[in-house]
Amino acid sequence: MEPIAHIRTPFAEKFGVPRQGNLAPHVISEIVFEPAYRSMDCVRGLEQFSHLWLIWQFHCNGTEWHPTVRPPRLGGNTRLGVFATRSPFRPNGLGLSVVRLVSVEPGPVLRVSGADMVDGTPVFDIKPYIPYADSLPEATSGFTAQPWHPLAVEICAPLPPQATPEWVAGMQEVLAQDPRPAYQDDPEREYHLVLLPLEITFRVSGGVARVLRVAPAPRRG
Amino acid sequence: MEPIAHIRTPFAEKFGVPRQGNLAPHVISEIVFEPAYRSMDCVRGLEQFSHLWLIWQFHCNGTEWHPTVRPPRLGGNTRLGVFATRSPFRPNGLGLSVVRLVSVEPGPVLRVSGADMVDGTPVFDIKPYIPYADSLPEATSGFTAQPWHPLAVEICAPLPPQATPEWVAGMQEVLAQDPRPAYQDDPEREYHLVLLPLEITFRVSGGVARVLRVAPAPRRG
Repeated sequence: MEPIAHIRTPFAEKFGVPRQGNLAPHVISEIVFEPAYRSMDCVRGLEQFSHLWLIWQFHCNGTEWHPTVRPPRLGGNTRLGVFATRSPFRPNGLGLSVVRLVSVEPGPVLRVSGADMVDGTPVFDIKPYIPYADSLPEATSGFTAQPWHPLAVEICAPLPPQATPEWVAGMQEVLAQDPRPAYQDDPEREYHLVLLPLEITFRVSGGVARVLRVAPAPRRG
Repeated sequence: MEPIAHIRTPFAEKFGVPRQGNLAPHVISEIVFEPAYRSMDCVRGLEQFSHLWLIWQFHCNGTEWHPTVRPPRLGGNTRLGVFATRSPFRPNGLGLSVVRLVSVEPGPVLRVSGADMVDGTPVFDIKPYIPYADSLPEATSGFTAQPWHPLAVEICAPLPPQATPEWVAGMQEVLAQDPRPAYQDDPEREYHLVLLPLEITFRVSGGVARVLRVAPAPRRG
Protein backbone atom coordinates (compact mmCIF):
# COMPACT_ATOMS: atom_id res chain seq x y z
CA MET A 1 0.00 0.00 0.00
CA GLU A 2 1.56 3.23 -1.21
CA PRO A 3 0.10 6.75 -1.00
CA ILE A 4 -1.29 7.98 -4.29
CA ALA A 5 -1.32 11.55 -2.99
CA HIS A 6 -0.84 13.78 0.03
CA ILE A 7 -3.28 16.38 1.21
CA ARG A 8 -2.25 19.91 2.14
CA THR A 9 -4.54 21.27 4.82
CA PRO A 10 -4.27 24.28 7.15
CA PHE A 11 -4.16 21.95 10.16
CA ALA A 12 -0.51 21.74 11.07
CA GLU A 13 -1.35 19.72 14.19
CA LYS A 14 -4.02 17.27 15.28
CA PHE A 15 -5.43 19.87 17.67
CA GLY A 16 -8.08 21.79 15.78
CA VAL A 17 -8.84 19.24 13.07
CA PRO A 18 -12.64 19.44 12.86
CA ARG A 19 -14.57 16.47 14.18
CA GLN A 20 -16.96 17.16 11.32
CA GLY A 21 -15.22 18.45 8.26
CA ASN A 22 -18.42 19.35 6.43
CA LEU A 23 -19.12 21.97 9.10
CA ALA A 24 -15.98 23.83 8.06
CA PRO A 25 -16.75 24.47 4.38
CA HIS A 26 -14.45 27.51 4.21
CA VAL A 27 -11.40 25.45 5.03
CA ILE A 28 -9.86 24.61 1.65
CA SER A 29 -7.33 21.83 1.20
CA GLU A 30 -5.35 20.58 -1.78
CA ILE A 31 -4.74 17.01 -2.83
CA VAL A 32 -1.39 16.72 -4.57
CA PHE A 33 -0.73 13.48 -6.43
CA GLU A 34 2.45 11.43 -6.18
CA PRO A 35 4.58 11.43 -9.36
CA ALA A 36 3.22 8.06 -10.62
CA TYR A 37 -0.33 9.49 -10.67
CA ARG A 38 0.41 12.98 -11.97
CA SER A 39 -1.69 12.70 -15.11
CA MET A 40 -4.91 14.53 -15.89
CA ASP A 41 -6.10 11.20 -17.34
CA CYS A 42 -6.33 9.77 -13.81
CA VAL A 43 -9.00 12.32 -12.86
CA ARG A 44 -10.81 12.65 -16.20
CA GLY A 45 -14.51 13.23 -15.50
CA LEU A 46 -14.02 13.82 -11.79
CA GLU A 47 -15.41 17.35 -12.15
CA GLN A 48 -18.84 15.74 -12.73
CA PHE A 49 -18.97 14.87 -9.04
CA SER A 50 -19.68 17.29 -6.23
CA HIS A 51 -18.12 15.15 -3.49
CA LEU A 52 -15.32 12.63 -3.11
CA TRP A 53 -14.36 9.88 -0.70
CA LEU A 54 -10.83 9.85 0.58
CA ILE A 55 -9.30 6.76 2.14
CA TRP A 56 -6.23 7.86 4.03
CA GLN A 57 -3.80 7.08 6.80
CA PHE A 58 -3.90 8.33 10.38
CA HIS A 59 -0.17 8.94 10.05
CA CYS A 60 0.23 10.96 13.25
CA ASN A 61 -0.53 7.92 15.37
CA GLY A 62 1.55 4.89 16.07
CA THR A 63 0.12 1.50 15.26
CA GLU A 64 -1.16 0.93 18.77
CA TRP A 65 -4.85 0.17 19.17
CA HIS A 66 -7.16 -1.18 21.87
CA PRO A 67 -10.34 -3.20 21.47
CA THR A 68 -12.35 -0.40 23.07
CA VAL A 69 -12.05 3.38 22.84
CA ARG A 70 -13.74 6.33 24.56
CA PRO A 71 -15.37 8.58 21.96
CA PRO A 72 -15.17 12.31 22.77
CA ARG A 73 -18.86 12.69 21.94
CA LEU A 74 -19.71 10.55 24.96
CA GLY A 75 -17.66 12.74 27.26
CA GLY A 76 -14.65 10.46 27.11
CA ASN A 77 -16.01 8.11 29.77
CA THR A 78 -17.90 5.40 27.92
CA ARG A 79 -16.03 2.61 26.17
CA LEU A 80 -17.15 1.39 22.76
CA GLY A 81 -15.62 -1.19 20.45
CA VAL A 82 -13.03 0.29 18.13
CA PHE A 83 -15.05 -0.85 15.09
CA ALA A 84 -18.14 0.90 16.48
CA THR A 85 -16.30 4.24 16.30
CA ARG A 86 -14.35 6.36 13.83
CA SER A 87 -11.44 6.52 16.27
CA PRO A 88 -8.01 7.21 14.75
CA PHE A 89 -6.46 4.52 16.93
CA ARG A 90 -7.56 1.45 14.99
CA PRO A 91 -6.08 -1.59 13.28
CA ASN A 92 -4.61 -0.59 9.90
CA GLY A 93 -5.04 3.10 10.79
CA LEU A 94 -7.32 3.90 7.85
CA GLY A 95 -9.38 7.08 7.76
CA LEU A 96 -12.46 7.67 5.63
CA SER A 97 -13.73 11.16 4.82
CA VAL A 98 -16.04 12.77 2.36
CA VAL A 99 -14.96 16.15 0.98
CA ARG A 100 -16.53 18.56 -1.45
CA LEU A 101 -14.69 18.96 -4.73
CA VAL A 102 -14.11 22.66 -5.34
CA SER A 103 -12.03 22.40 -8.51
CA VAL A 104 -9.65 20.24 -10.50
CA GLU A 105 -6.45 22.18 -11.17
CA PRO A 106 -3.53 21.31 -13.45
CA GLY A 107 -1.12 18.83 -11.97
CA PRO A 108 -3.60 17.45 -11.21
CA VAL A 109 -4.27 19.14 -7.90
CA LEU A 110 -7.72 18.72 -6.39
CA ARG A 111 -9.03 21.65 -4.36
CA VAL A 112 -11.50 20.35 -1.78
CA SER A 113 -13.35 21.67 1.22
CA GLY A 114 -14.30 19.96 4.45
CA ALA A 115 -11.20 17.81 4.93
CA ASP A 116 -10.72 16.65 8.52
CA MET A 117 -7.07 15.70 8.14
CA VAL A 118 -3.72 16.93 9.35
CA ASP A 119 -1.49 18.68 6.80
CA GLY A 120 0.57 16.13 4.87
CA THR A 121 -1.74 13.17 5.43
CA PRO A 122 -1.09 10.34 2.95
CA VAL A 123 -4.07 9.43 0.76
CA PHE A 124 -4.49 5.84 -0.46
CA ASP A 125 -7.54 6.24 -2.65
CA ILE A 126 -9.98 8.76 -4.08
CA LYS A 127 -13.43 7.66 -5.21
CA PRO A 128 -16.45 9.63 -6.41
CA TYR A 129 -19.32 10.00 -3.95
CA ILE A 130 -22.30 8.29 -5.56
CA PRO A 131 -25.49 9.42 -3.80
CA TYR A 132 -27.69 6.49 -4.80
CA ALA A 133 -25.28 4.06 -3.17
CA ASP A 134 -23.62 6.16 -0.47
CA SER A 135 -26.35 8.44 0.84
CA LEU A 136 -28.54 6.74 3.41
CA PRO A 137 -30.43 9.48 5.23
CA GLU A 138 -32.55 6.81 6.94
CA ALA A 139 -29.52 5.12 8.52
CA THR A 140 -29.61 5.18 12.29
CA SER A 141 -26.66 5.81 14.49
CA GLY A 142 -26.05 5.46 18.16
CA PHE A 143 -24.17 7.94 20.27
CA THR A 144 -23.44 10.26 17.39
CA ALA A 145 -27.12 11.13 17.11
CA GLN A 146 -26.86 13.13 20.35
CA PRO A 147 -27.47 16.81 19.82
CA TRP A 148 -24.35 18.89 19.63
CA HIS A 149 -24.22 22.61 20.38
CA PRO A 150 -21.84 24.79 18.42
CA LEU A 151 -19.87 27.44 20.27
CA ALA A 152 -20.38 31.09 19.49
CA VAL A 153 -17.13 32.75 18.38
CA GLU A 154 -16.04 36.21 19.51
CA ILE A 155 -12.99 37.81 17.97
CA CYS A 156 -11.36 39.94 20.69
CA ALA A 157 -8.08 40.57 18.89
CA PRO A 158 -6.74 42.49 15.90
CA LEU A 159 -6.43 40.38 12.77
CA PRO A 160 -3.19 40.40 10.76
CA PRO A 161 -3.35 40.85 6.98
CA GLN A 162 -3.03 37.08 6.36
CA ALA A 163 -6.47 36.71 7.95
CA THR A 164 -8.47 36.90 4.74
CA PRO A 165 -12.26 36.83 4.96
CA GLU A 166 -12.14 33.17 3.87
CA TRP A 167 -9.62 32.36 6.57
CA VAL A 168 -11.74 34.10 9.22
CA ALA A 169 -14.82 32.20 8.09
CA GLY A 170 -12.84 28.95 8.35
CA MET A 171 -11.57 29.90 11.81
CA GLN A 172 -15.11 30.51 12.99
CA GLU A 173 -16.25 27.16 11.63
CA VAL A 174 -13.36 25.36 13.29
CA LEU A 175 -13.76 27.03 16.68
CA ALA A 176 -17.55 26.57 16.66
CA GLN A 177 -16.94 22.82 16.80
CA ASP A 178 -15.17 23.19 20.15
CA PRO A 179 -11.72 21.70 19.55
CA ARG A 180 -11.09 21.16 23.27
CA PRO A 181 -10.74 17.61 24.58
CA ALA A 182 -14.10 16.43 25.85
CA TYR A 183 -13.07 16.31 29.47
CA GLN A 184 -11.64 19.84 29.67
CA ASP A 185 -13.75 22.78 30.75
CA ASP A 186 -11.43 25.36 32.28
CA PRO A 187 -12.51 28.92 31.37
CA GLU A 188 -9.03 30.27 32.17
CA ARG A 189 -7.11 27.86 30.01
CA GLU A 190 -5.57 29.26 26.83
CA TYR A 191 -5.51 27.05 23.77
CA HIS A 192 -3.31 27.46 20.71
CA LEU A 193 -4.63 26.26 17.40
CA VAL A 194 -2.65 26.41 14.17
CA LEU A 195 -4.80 27.15 11.15
CA LEU A 196 -2.17 27.87 8.55
CA PRO A 197 -0.77 30.36 7.93
CA LEU A 198 -1.83 31.68 11.36
CA GLU A 199 -2.03 30.57 14.97
CA ILE A 200 -5.09 31.32 17.08
CA THR A 201 -5.06 31.72 20.85
CA PHE A 202 -8.46 31.32 22.47
CA ARG A 203 -10.39 30.54 25.64
CA VAL A 204 -13.82 28.95 26.03
CA SER A 205 -16.45 29.72 28.63
CA GLY A 206 -20.22 29.81 28.72
CA GLY A 207 -20.61 28.41 25.23
CA VAL A 208 -18.39 31.09 23.70
CA ALA A 209 -14.93 30.74 22.15
CA ARG A 210 -13.05 34.03 22.61
CA VAL A 211 -10.19 34.64 20.21
CA LEU A 212 -7.47 36.41 22.20
CA ARG A 213 -4.69 36.54 19.66
CA VAL A 214 -4.08 35.79 15.97
CA ALA A 215 -0.47 35.71 14.81
CA PRO A 216 1.68 34.04 12.17
CA ALA A 217 2.11 30.35 12.97
CA PRO A 218 5.53 29.30 14.27
CA ARG A 219 7.84 27.67 11.72
CA ARG A 220 7.46 23.90 11.63
CA GLY A 221 10.00 21.12 11.69
CA MET B 1 -1.87 -3.67 6.14
CA GLU B 2 -3.39 -6.93 7.36
CA PRO B 3 -7.00 -8.08 7.00
CA ILE B 4 -8.98 -7.75 10.22
CA ALA B 5 -11.68 -10.06 8.84
CA HIS B 6 -12.93 -11.91 5.79
CA ILE B 7 -16.45 -11.76 4.46
CA ARG B 8 -18.42 -14.85 3.50
CA THR B 9 -20.83 -14.01 0.71
CA PRO B 10 -22.87 -16.23 -1.64
CA PHE B 11 -20.89 -14.88 -4.60
CA ALA B 12 -18.34 -17.55 -5.36
CA GLU B 13 -17.20 -15.67 -8.48
CA LYS B 14 -17.04 -12.09 -9.64
CA PHE B 15 -19.83 -12.72 -12.13
CA GLY B 16 -23.08 -11.92 -10.38
CA VAL B 17 -21.74 -9.63 -7.68
CA PRO B 18 -24.34 -6.85 -7.65
CA ARG B 19 -23.28 -3.48 -9.00
CA GLN B 20 -25.46 -2.04 -6.27
CA GLY B 21 -25.44 -4.15 -3.15
CA ASN B 22 -28.25 -2.23 -1.48
CA LEU B 23 -30.61 -3.44 -4.22
CA ALA B 24 -30.04 -7.02 -3.07
CA PRO B 25 -31.19 -6.76 0.56
CA HIS B 26 -32.02 -10.47 0.80
CA VAL B 27 -28.44 -11.49 0.14
CA ILE B 28 -26.95 -12.06 3.58
CA SER B 29 -23.21 -12.17 4.20
CA GLU B 30 -21.11 -12.82 7.29
CA ILE B 31 -18.04 -10.96 8.43
CA VAL B 32 -15.73 -13.30 10.32
CA PHE B 33 -12.90 -11.67 12.26
CA GLU B 34 -9.30 -12.78 12.20
CA PRO B 35 -8.05 -14.32 15.47
CA ALA B 36 -6.41 -11.10 16.72
CA TYR B 37 -9.79 -9.32 16.61
CA ARG B 38 -12.03 -12.10 17.88
CA SER B 39 -13.32 -10.24 20.90
CA MET B 40 -16.82 -8.96 21.52
CA ASP B 41 -15.11 -5.87 22.98
CA CYS B 42 -14.01 -4.84 19.47
CA VAL B 43 -17.64 -4.47 18.34
CA ARG B 44 -19.19 -3.22 21.58
CA GLY B 45 -21.99 -0.80 20.71
CA LEU B 46 -21.96 -1.64 17.02
CA GLU B 47 -25.58 -2.83 17.26
CA GLN B 48 -26.58 0.84 17.73
CA PHE B 49 -25.84 1.44 14.05
CA SER B 50 -28.01 0.33 11.16
CA HIS B 51 -25.27 0.48 8.53
CA LEU B 52 -21.52 -0.05 8.32
CA TRP B 53 -18.71 0.95 6.02
CA LEU B 54 -16.35 -1.76 4.88
CA ILE B 55 -12.93 -0.98 3.45
CA TRP B 56 -11.73 -4.07 1.66
CA GLN B 57 -9.42 -5.47 -0.97
CA PHE B 58 -10.29 -6.27 -4.57
CA HIS B 59 -8.38 -9.52 -4.10
CA CYS B 60 -9.53 -11.19 -7.33
CA ASN B 61 -7.58 -8.69 -9.41
CA GLY B 62 -3.91 -8.34 -9.94
CA THR B 63 -2.26 -5.05 -9.14
CA GLU B 64 -2.51 -3.76 -12.69
CA TRP B 65 -4.28 -0.45 -13.22
CA HIS B 66 -4.61 2.11 -15.99
CA PRO B 67 -5.13 5.88 -15.69
CA THR B 68 -8.51 5.55 -17.43
CA VAL B 69 -11.21 2.89 -17.27
CA ARG B 70 -14.48 2.26 -19.13
CA PRO B 71 -17.37 2.09 -16.66
CA PRO B 72 -20.04 -0.51 -17.54
CA ARG B 73 -22.77 2.09 -16.90
CA LEU B 74 -21.54 4.05 -19.90
CA GLY B 75 -21.78 1.02 -22.15
CA GLY B 76 -18.09 0.23 -21.82
CA ASN B 77 -17.06 2.73 -24.50
CA THR B 78 -16.29 5.95 -22.66
CA ARG B 79 -13.04 6.38 -20.77
CA LEU B 80 -12.97 8.08 -17.37
CA GLY B 81 -10.12 8.63 -14.96
CA VAL B 82 -9.68 5.73 -12.55
CA PHE B 83 -10.23 8.08 -9.57
CA ALA B 84 -13.51 9.27 -11.13
CA THR B 85 -14.89 5.73 -10.94
CA ARG B 86 -15.36 2.91 -8.44
CA SER B 87 -13.51 0.53 -10.77
CA PRO B 88 -11.89 -2.50 -9.10
CA PHE B 89 -8.73 -1.99 -11.15
CA ARG B 90 -7.18 0.86 -9.19
CA PRO B 91 -3.99 1.75 -7.35
CA ASN B 92 -3.96 0.04 -3.93
CA GLY B 93 -7.01 -2.04 -4.93
CA LEU B 94 -9.22 -0.76 -2.11
CA GLY B 95 -12.98 -1.23 -2.18
CA LEU B 96 -15.52 0.78 -0.19
CA SER B 97 -19.04 -0.47 0.49
CA VAL B 98 -21.86 0.30 2.81
CA VAL B 99 -23.80 -2.67 4.18
CA ARG B 100 -26.77 -2.98 6.48
CA LEU B 101 -26.02 -4.57 9.85
CA VAL B 102 -28.50 -7.40 10.42
CA SER B 103 -27.09 -8.75 13.69
CA VAL B 104 -23.99 -9.13 15.81
CA GLU B 105 -23.45 -12.80 16.58
CA PRO B 106 -21.00 -14.42 19.00
CA GLY B 107 -17.47 -14.72 17.64
CA PRO B 108 -17.99 -11.93 16.82
CA VAL B 109 -19.57 -12.58 13.46
CA LEU B 110 -21.42 -9.69 11.81
CA ARG B 111 -24.40 -10.63 9.67
CA VAL B 112 -24.90 -7.97 7.02
CA SER B 113 -26.98 -7.48 3.91
CA GLY B 114 -26.15 -5.73 0.67
CA ALA B 115 -22.48 -6.70 0.37
CA ASP B 116 -21.15 -6.41 -3.17
CA MET B 117 -18.08 -8.56 -2.62
CA VAL B 118 -16.81 -11.96 -3.70
CA ASP B 119 -16.81 -14.71 -1.07
CA GLY B 120 -13.62 -14.63 0.98
CA THR B 121 -12.83 -10.95 0.37
CA PRO B 122 -10.34 -9.57 2.94
CA VAL B 123 -11.67 -6.66 5.02
CA PHE B 124 -9.25 -3.99 6.29
CA ASP B 125 -11.62 -1.88 8.34
CA ILE B 126 -15.17 -1.62 9.61
CA LYS B 127 -16.61 1.76 10.59
CA PRO B 128 -20.09 2.82 11.62
CA TYR B 129 -22.13 4.72 9.04
CA ILE B 130 -22.80 8.14 10.54
CA PRO B 131 -25.65 9.79 8.64
CA TYR B 132 -24.86 13.40 9.60
CA ALA B 133 -21.39 13.09 8.12
CA ASP B 134 -21.79 10.41 5.45
CA SER B 135 -25.24 10.99 3.99
CA LEU B 136 -25.24 13.72 1.35
CA PRO B 137 -28.46 13.36 -0.62
CA GLU B 138 -27.71 16.66 -2.36
CA ALA B 139 -24.41 15.41 -3.78
CA THR B 140 -24.35 15.34 -7.54
CA SER B 141 -22.82 12.64 -9.62
CA GLY B 142 -21.99 12.34 -13.25
CA PHE B 143 -22.60 9.27 -15.34
CA THR B 144 -24.04 7.24 -12.48
CA ALA B 145 -27.08 9.50 -12.40
CA GLN B 146 -28.29 7.93 -15.64
CA PRO B 147 -31.52 6.01 -15.21
CA TRP B 148 -31.14 2.27 -14.93
CA HIS B 149 -33.87 -0.22 -15.74
CA PRO B 150 -34.10 -3.40 -13.70
CA LEU B 151 -34.80 -6.66 -15.50
CA ALA B 152 -37.95 -8.63 -14.81
CA VAL B 153 -37.17 -12.15 -13.59
CA GLU B 154 -39.07 -15.24 -14.72
CA ILE B 155 -38.38 -18.58 -13.08
CA CYS B 156 -38.86 -21.25 -15.75
CA ALA B 157 -37.29 -24.13 -13.82
CA PRO B 158 -38.01 -26.33 -10.80
CA LEU B 159 -36.34 -25.12 -7.63
CA PRO B 160 -34.35 -27.54 -5.48
CA PRO B 161 -34.94 -27.63 -1.71
CA GLN B 162 -31.88 -25.44 -1.01
CA ALA B 163 -33.74 -22.60 -2.74
CA THR B 164 -35.30 -21.11 0.36
CA PRO B 165 -37.69 -18.17 -0.01
CA GLU B 166 -34.86 -15.89 1.14
CA TRP B 167 -32.51 -17.35 -1.45
CA VAL B 168 -35.10 -16.93 -4.20
CA ALA B 169 -35.67 -13.32 -3.19
CA GLY B 170 -31.91 -12.75 -3.30
CA MET B 171 -31.68 -14.40 -6.72
CA GLN B 172 -34.40 -12.11 -8.07
CA GLU B 173 -32.61 -9.06 -6.70
CA VAL B 174 -29.29 -10.14 -8.21
CA LEU B 175 -30.70 -10.98 -11.65
CA ALA B 176 -32.80 -7.80 -11.78
CA GLN B 177 -29.53 -5.86 -11.82
CA ASP B 178 -28.54 -7.53 -15.10
CA PRO B 179 -25.21 -9.16 -14.33
CA ARG B 180 -24.24 -9.38 -18.01
CA PRO B 181 -21.25 -7.41 -19.24
CA ALA B 182 -22.45 -4.09 -20.64
CA TYR B 183 -21.54 -4.88 -24.21
CA GLN B 184 -23.32 -8.26 -24.40
CA ASP B 185 -26.90 -8.58 -25.65
CA ASP B 186 -27.30 -12.06 -27.13
CA PRO B 187 -30.74 -13.51 -26.30
CA GLU B 188 -29.49 -17.07 -26.96
CA ARG B 189 -26.50 -16.92 -24.67
CA GLU B 190 -26.73 -18.92 -21.45
CA TYR B 191 -25.11 -17.47 -18.36
CA HIS B 192 -24.12 -19.35 -15.22
CA LEU B 193 -24.18 -17.48 -11.95
CA VAL B 194 -23.16 -19.01 -8.64
CA LEU B 195 -25.24 -17.76 -5.72
CA LEU B 196 -24.19 -20.18 -3.01
CA PRO B 197 -25.23 -22.85 -2.39
CA LEU B 198 -26.77 -22.98 -5.88
CA GLU B 199 -25.90 -22.19 -9.47
CA ILE B 200 -28.36 -20.39 -11.74
CA THR B 201 -28.49 -20.77 -15.51
CA PHE B 202 -30.32 -17.94 -17.26
CA ARG B 203 -30.84 -16.02 -20.49
CA VAL B 204 -31.82 -12.41 -21.01
CA SER B 205 -34.01 -10.94 -23.74
CA GLY B 206 -36.52 -8.14 -24.00
CA GLY B 207 -35.83 -6.85 -20.51
CA VAL B 208 -36.51 -10.24 -18.91
CA ALA B 209 -34.06 -12.62 -17.22
CA ARG B 210 -35.35 -16.19 -17.64
CA VAL B 211 -34.06 -18.71 -15.13
CA LEU B 212 -33.59 -21.98 -17.03
CA ARG B 213 -31.98 -24.14 -14.36
CA VAL B 214 -31.17 -24.01 -10.65
CA ALA B 215 -28.84 -26.68 -9.31
CA PRO B 216 -26.27 -27.19 -6.57
CA ALA B 217 -23.15 -25.15 -7.29
CA PRO B 218 -20.11 -27.13 -8.40
CA ARG B 219 -17.49 -27.79 -5.73
CA ARG B 220 -14.86 -25.08 -5.61
CA GLY B 221 -11.11 -25.25 -5.49
